Amino acid sequence: MSSPSRRDEILNTALKLFNEQGSANVSTRHIAEAMGISPGNLYYYFPHKEAIIHAILDRAEALFEEVYDFDSAHLPSPKSLLKRREHYFWEYRFFQSEMMLLFQNDPSLKERFGKLQQKRLKEIEKMLGVLQEAGILRPLKEELKKILTQNLWIVSNFWNLFLEIEGRLFEEETKGVIENILALLKPHMTREGIAWILLDNEHEGVKA
Amino acid sequence: MSSPSRRDEILNTALKLFNEQGSANVSTRHIAEAMGISPGNLYYYFPHKEAIIHAILDRAEALFEEVYDFDSAHLPSPKSLLKRREHYFWEYRFFQSEMMLLFQNDPSLKERFGKLQQKRLKEIEKMLGVLQEAGILRPLKEELKKILTQNLWIVSNFWNLFLEIEGRLFEEETKGVIENILALLKPHMTREGIAWILLDNEHEGVKA
Repeated sequence: MSSPSRRDEILNTALKLFNEQGSANVSTRHIAEAMGISPGNLYYYFPHKEAIIHAILDRAEALFEEVYDFDSAHLPSPKSLLKRREHYFWEYRFFQSEMMLLFQNDPSLKERFGKLQQKRLKEIEKMLGVLQEAGILRPLKEELKKILTQNLWIVSNFWNLFLEIEGRLFEEETKGVIENILALLKPHMTREGIAWILLDNEHEGVKA
Repeated sequence: MSSPSRRDEILNTALKLFNEQGSANVSTRHIAEAMGISPGNLYYYFPHKEAIIHAILDRAEALFEEVYDFDSAHLPSPKSLLKRREHYFWEYRFFQSEMMLLFQNDPSLKERFGKLQQKRLKEIEKMLGVLQEAGILRPLKEELKKILTQNLWIVSNFWNLFLEIEGRLFEEETKGVIENILALLKPHMTREGIAWILLDNEHEGVKA
């Protein structure tokens, strides 16, 4: 693997600091300092912190695109599916826990998040259709599918904020949301769907 | 009904302005102006904005205490139960949509919210027990009860933020969460539980 470009290095460092210290407490100067480069060098790539945040969001987006990218003929296992989204929600956790602060500092981010939320909802609804085609989910009425989609998104997207409020936004806790997501889906699963989940758990048991 | 005290008037005015304009955009001076009193008069009751926010939270708390205050012998109808919480979530909506901003300005609020969240979770779990006793819900395994409790709280508590991200935090939209909450409960309801909900809907139909 080639070493990351200077631009990528800046984004990696910024993301790490945002996650650890909260983005409000991290300036472009701090990021440059942590990298041992001059602020001028950083400004060559990004004129201000807002540009860095937007670039991190671009990257998060590209990663998220892959989460739901499958069809009923190439179904990932439930755990591997959930692990993909887990990686995303841990790596980019400051987006969820600081959302409102970010919006206040940069209203254009709110607009972007609004559009992303609508996109996510469409992807989740599509995924439910794929799981239905694959015989994992029972056929759902349109209205229920819409509501289930919203509930899946709200539990996923606000789980980190839920943890942060109690001061327990840690990696292990972030992963815990898997059980909450499965609890939303299970009542609508076919017998084959339940077997699909159990198979996954057994497999994990063997590895453990 | 006696007229509200000056103290209550301040809280009513502040809450209205916070909800309409966002608390960050409202100062104690704005609140005094809107009431046609001097800032000095306001400071006699509240030394600063943080004290007003804490007092509003006290009031919200007292209101919320009533939401889940029932036992299996005096079960409210599902809609009246949900209407109680609906009132709370609309009247005090800035708390949900601005949570993180409030925490940044006043860390003691975060600590309060953390404790309140734990309290709410206990109340919801207790309510599930009451619904089970009343024959509305099927018996749930402890683990599932815990997860269902979290999902109910997350969908309830973050619904306004979910709407705000898309710029549609309006009263009618806030009420929409009822369907999302029922969708979480229905898979675990007995036949009697489902009938309990349908009865409620029919009753609404008659009134309409």
